[in-house]
Amino acid sequence: MESEFVAWLRERLPPHPLLRLGPGDDAAVLRLGDRAECVVTVDLLTDGVDFQVGQVDPRRIGRKALAVNLSDLAAMAARPVAAVIALALPRQGGLALARQLYEGLLPLAAEHHVAIAGGDTNAWDGPLAISITALGETTVRGPLQRKGARPGDVLMVTGELGGSILGKHFDFEPRVREALALHARYDVRAGIDISDGLALDLGRLADESSVGAEVRTDLVPVSAAAHRLAAERGDGTTALDHALGDGEDFELLLAVAPEDASRMAADSLGVRLTAIGRFVAEPGLWRIDAGQVRRPLARTGFEHSMTP
Amino acid sequence: MESEFVAWLRERLPPHPLLRLGPGDDAAVLRLGDRAECVVTVDLLTDGVDFQVGQVDPRRIGRKALAVNLSDLAAMAARPVAAVIALALPRQGGLALARQLYEGLLPLAAEHHVAIAGGDTNAWDGPLAISITALGETTVRGPLQRKGARPGDVLMVTGELGGSILGKHFDFEPRVREALALHARYDVRAGIDISDGLALDLGRLADESSVGAEVRTDLVPVSAAAHRLAAERGDGTTALDHALGDGEDFELLLAVAPEDASRMAADSLGVRLTAIGRFVAEPGLWRIDAGQVRRPLARTGFEHSMTP
Repeated sequence: MESEFVAWLRERLPPHPLLRLGPGDDAAVLRLGDRAECVVTVDLLTDGVDFQVGQVDPRRIGRKALAVNLSDLAAMAARPVAAVIALALPRQGGLALARQLYEGLLPLAAEHHVAIAGGDTNAWDGPLAISITALGETTVRGPLQRKGARPGDVLMVTGELGGSILGKHFDFEPRVREALALHARYDVRAGIDISDGLALDLGRLADESSVGAEVRTDLVPVSAAAHRLAAERGDGTTALDHALGDGEDFELLLAVAPEDASRMAADSLGVRLTAIGRFVAEPGLWRIDAGQVRRPLARTGFEHSMTP
Repeated sequence: MESEFVAWLRERLPPHPLLRLGPGDDAAVLRLGDRAECVVTVDLLTDGVDFQVGQVDPRRIGRKALAVNLSDLAAMAARPVAAVIALALPRQGGLALARQLYEGLLPLAAEHHVAIAGGDTNAWDGPLAISITALGETTVRGPLQRKGARPGDVLMVTGELGGSILGKHFDFEPRVREALALHARYDVRAGIDISDGLALDLGRLADESSVGAEVRTDLVPVSAAAHRLAAERGDGTTALDHALGDGEDFELLLAVAPEDASRMAADSLGVRLTAIGRFVAEPGLWRIDAGQVRRPLARTGFEHSMTP
């Protein structure tokens, strides 16, 4: 499991005077020069795991590789600045593939004012792998972190959830502008992006904040794709299950001070904002289904598994 | 060829207000906050190209993956600050491999005060690929660039060259401290690290500086490994040929103001510093063998090739 490896690694990493926030959040925060805070995050996407070369337009792959990094910056409420791109390309057709990857990601970079600051483009005998490192800077409000949620805070989410495998996992909009606007205007106390599933990522935020959380399942904004997926598969997994457990929605999950939550929900950001529960002092995740008593919420989601 | 792809890409990259120095040098320079300049570089190393898993201790692979990035920061005379590490690991034995890679790179990170600021660790069905992005900051002297060499400048090189394939390409010392010290004390006008071969990298520096260069081949510090390799192979390639054309020495190649060159050569940095030629106004690379007239120096070295 990647989480075990990260625990092993964190024990071996010495503190560093310039590392204000180290591995374990959506991105790290570094102090550079006198005042600037540099936010840095890396994501590696590979053929056969995150996409299938030959089954999807490479432009969508390239766009996604940058978008997942921008989503990590959004989760920290950081302003994107630059990205560097490392490509391991199959020898046959590698150059054409590289061009298509860039054709997909350059418009997204331009939209978010991200400078492509460098890259390393290599051919090899393996399949396609793309590693992008994105750099951002914090605003005057500082970075939004996974820790900071308090009992009583409202649990809010952008957009709609579930069924991203039907297309949104490539074409999602990283919530950069939304994160910056909300962090500037409201008392947003903690945040994370939903990369591995609502329940799993909520658990991470709650753990880092040393609080618990209750989800009102009847309030969860279930996407049309989640309904379609549940109907298509017919395996007993409901649309709500997909909304709670599917990964790669890349929506924001936020802990908001209660006095700001209703004001925030009425803000016209161009994206739906929904209060779906609250944080509580008691550790653990709980679900409250309409008219039912609360019961534990399973931490379903996408765990990256590895053979030791 | 990677160079053609980079040319294609550079045409498509819009200017960016925070990008002080973009793709094309050893690293990019970004302006963050009020004053800080962030230097960023990425290198991707892959199984079968840069190393062979199973034939070398993975600790040496991990160390090299970080060291090549530190060498790029050294080439910019930037102080290393942090690195993020993306791993694509084979499923079988991937976790054990990841630990060994980190065991190899962590001591080098500690030695150079590099914070490991984050990572992404993934398993897949492909071979091992390692992408490291390193961040640094410039000193008050600003970044050392490939451009800036002037006719009359002395061409200097650290260490000894050639035959790195016999071991140095894994175990080299990135010349971080040397670059910082020389850039602080002397009028070093341009620099590059020798990653693809003396002649090839000298050509890059000369081109970016819009000058030519003459190499006095009898002054080139030929390593013992280059002599050993020439003797072992017996293919007519001389030790000097290896010193001129082998890649992965990761020594510094510098253009130094003539009035500083002899002072600099006498500096006790713990590393050999050798003047091996000079820059000239006439474009092109030239070699002067002992007692001979000058003739063109072939731009031999390691070119990354790709099939379109």
